[in-house]
Amino acid sequence: METEMEKIGTWIKENRARGARLLQKLVQEGSIRGHESKAQAIIIEKCRRLGLELDIWEIGEQSVTGHEAFCSDRKDFSGNPNVVGVLKGAGGGRSLILNGHIDVVPPGDRNDWLHDPFSGTIDGGKLFGRGATDMKGGSVALLLAIEAIVSCGLSLNGDVIFQSVIEEESGGAGTLAAVLRGYKADGAIIPEPTNMRLFPKQQGSMWFRISVKGRSAHGGTRYEGVSAIEKAMVVLTALQNLEEQRNTRVNDPLYAKTPIPIPINIGKINSGEWPSSVPDSAVIEGRMGVSPDETMNAAEQEMEACLKQLNEADPWFQLHPLKIDWFGGRWQPGNLDIDHPLLTALSEAFVEVKKEKPVIEASPWGTDGGILSNVGGTPVVVFGPGVTEAAHDTNEYIILEDLFAAAEIIAFTIIKWCGLHTN
Amino acid sequence: METEMEKIGTWIKENRARGARLLQKLVQEGSIRGHESKAQAIIIEKCRRLGLELDIWEIGEQSVTGHEAFCSDRKDFSGNPNVVGVLKGAGGGRSLILNGHIDVVPPGDRNDWLHDPFSGTIDGGKLFGRGATDMKGGSVALLLAIEAIVSCGLSLNGDVIFQSVIEEESGGAGTLAAVLRGYKADGAIIPEPTNMRLFPKQQGSMWFRISVKGRSAHGGTRYEGVSAIEKAMVVLTALQNLEEQRNTRVNDPLYAKTPIPIPINIGKINSGEWPSSVPDSAVIEGRMGVSPDETMNAAEQEMEACLKQLNEADPWFQLHPLKIDWFGGRWQPGNLDIDHPLLTALSEAFVEVKKEKPVIEASPWGTDGGILSNVGGTPVVVFGPGVTEAAHDTNEYIILEDLFAAAEIIAFTIIKWCGLHTN
Repeated sequence: METEMEKIGTWIKENRARGARLLQKLVQEGSIRGHESKAQAIIIEKCRRLGLELDIWEIGEQSVTGHEAFCSDRKDFSGNPNVVGVLKGAGGGRSLILNGHIDVVPPGDRNDWLHDPFSGTIDGGKLFGRGATDMKGGSVALLLAIEAIVSCGLSLNGDVIFQSVIEEESGGAGTLAAVLRGYKADGAIIPEPTNMRLFPKQQGSMWFRISVKGRSAHGGTRYEGVSAIEKAMVVLTALQNLEEQRNTRVNDPLYAKTPIPIPINIGKINSGEWPSSVPDSAVIEGRMGVSPDETMNAAEQEMEACLKQLNEADPWFQLHPLKIDWFGGRWQPGNLDIDHPLLTALSEAFVEVKKEKPVIEASPWGTDGGILSNVGGTPVVVFGPGVTEAAHDTNEYIILEDLFAAAEIIAFTIIKWCGLHTN
Repeated sequence: METEMEKIGTWIKENRARGARLLQKLVQEGSIRGHESKAQAIIIEKCRRLGLELDIWEIGEQSVTGHEAFCSDRKDFSGNPNVVGVLKGAGGGRSLILNGHIDVVPPGDRNDWLHDPFSGTIDGGKLFGRGATDMKGGSVALLLAIEAIVSCGLSLNGDVIFQSVIEEESGGAGTLAAVLRGYKADGAIIPEPTNMRLFPKQQGSMWFRISVKGRSAHGGTRYEGVSAIEKAMVVLTALQNLEEQRNTRVNDPLYAKTPIPIPINIGKINSGEWPSSVPDSAVIEGRMGVSPDETMNAAEQEMEACLKQLNEADPWFQLHPLKIDWFGGRWQPGNLDIDHPLLTALSEAFVEVKKEKPVIEASPWGTDGGILSNVGGTPVVVFGPGVTEAAHDTNEYIILEDLFAAAEIIAFTIIKWCGLHTN
């Protein structure tokens, strides 16, 4: 007789095209920030068909926007809801949150893409497009896992709480809203693109904006001015040094294979208005990685001390000090004990499906897991089928084979964690 | 008996209010690009009253727009003519072009101005407003000089060719059109704002745009991408070195007091779209100074060779070469021999009026003089009453005392250069 696990495996094998088609549809609705509603509509329809208890709401309430972990410069959340679908258990089992975000980052220069970033083209076992890997592919793995369980006629003891949230790429306001609405559980899986690795720890991160002053002058007598671009280069060099110092301190074995465990990324620089004028201001924007072993606050202070040093040492900065603003995105680091039973259950499921041991590491980025664990008290493992290197990149893609394997592993984990209900 | 020079001096002294009023009217017609006609109408009326032979024409002809020195992105020149007024000499004397531009740069934020930029307010011996210094004040000095000569009943041997051109601030198409229409002479004076210094040589300049490629990645794994900002820093450092090399070669004594005779000014940099992505492109815009001793072409080639070196030496640039685009503004350098009789005549006139030696230097910016000399073969000195630092600045102003002194110096120079005609 076929076991439950075998049934799940067979169902997923037979329904691969269904999963690929769902992902394609989601990629085709390019849900960049402020435009999440059409992709969410596809999710809602899917949850409805699976018989999940739906909770659909706009997240702008005061209890969220006034919370200390709220981090967003978005003024209007209307029309682009959070979606939660609950598969109620019979009772007596552990509950599990399955959390994916629906927002995607902008595609950059479309001419650099081989296929249109919102085409969802499938080619050679890969599905291409912005969001394929980060992380609509992960969300499809969650939905396929739930659909497999439901379709195989299995029922569970604990609740499975599927979440499709907005605003992950901009600071996690969507997941914060879900936590504050009461969604907590005995464990959570977030299928961010981990290349099928298990991440019990996650690098946190936060955005910063540094304002650099110069003094304008005609380009023909540029020595009469002070170039904000040249002064910005001084700042960039100092940040490179700070990054190096901070990373020499990271000695967690989970980061052993990571070239830069907690990077300081410079994402934007804008300076000047006119080719023949000396620019009188420059704005640098970036992302600072935060170690699982430190607090957001400690990392902030270290960066500020670095700028303070420049402000004291450089005669120009003494008169025109650098200013830093911690704006936009903030993702708390995650730090799950390596012996936690959720990690054990997921690891066992991995071995059963893949017939090999999983790679367990620390993630190079923060996820909404930081909010689920730090604010919601829910233990989190990040594990997903997406291609880490392809996230935010041109020609982003996911390997469909991995998506189906992840769906199977997650379905097994759900059964192990929540418990099968037998009449 | 009063000499001719004394007559001129007396006439100008008695007609200061007339000169100030003319400048005020010209400033009040804010002749930013595309809106030069009303200010030109005032010039035309003045030339008519002085009895000059008028030539008024729109400059869009194919011989101009197709010329290799033509540099403009303007599509329509209709309704905003060039104006030339000729004071015919009796013959046998040297001819002199007196060239001023009527276009002014935009005033910027009007709230930053003490007086409305188009009011022409006179306060404490200064006349304020956009264009007062650059260079309607200079043009008024030219017209006052001609008016003094005519009013004193003097006649000349050589022709005086007064020009009020458009498009100087955007690449010199107005002066190019005048040259191609046949206006050449034995000498020319351009009263750009030199603080009463004499500039026989002028720094040329041209704008460039360098495009730098990177490879995008997530900021948390920034080592998987290539930062266009970091690669742009490599370019900026190379341009700093190039600037240094180029300036060590400049040993003209006229540049002795200039810290950087031919600067490479970086006016703008823009890179990146998202704080937590590795930026995949950067655009640098700037202005390259061109020495009076070199051609525009030679300077271009030197910059391109510098980038070519980077493209060959850097493995990333080998695959993703830097690109340069010479867009927008171009001003040819000027290079008059220090012993040229025009400079001698102007210097003598300066001493006669000011009772002191003039400061003779090289200008830190290009003027229409580059086109008059390089295309038209007319020897040029740039000398004017405007305040160099006030050009293009908020609260632009001119010192009226300097305007009247310049008018007298120019009138004397006209007499020396063109020769007094005696019956």
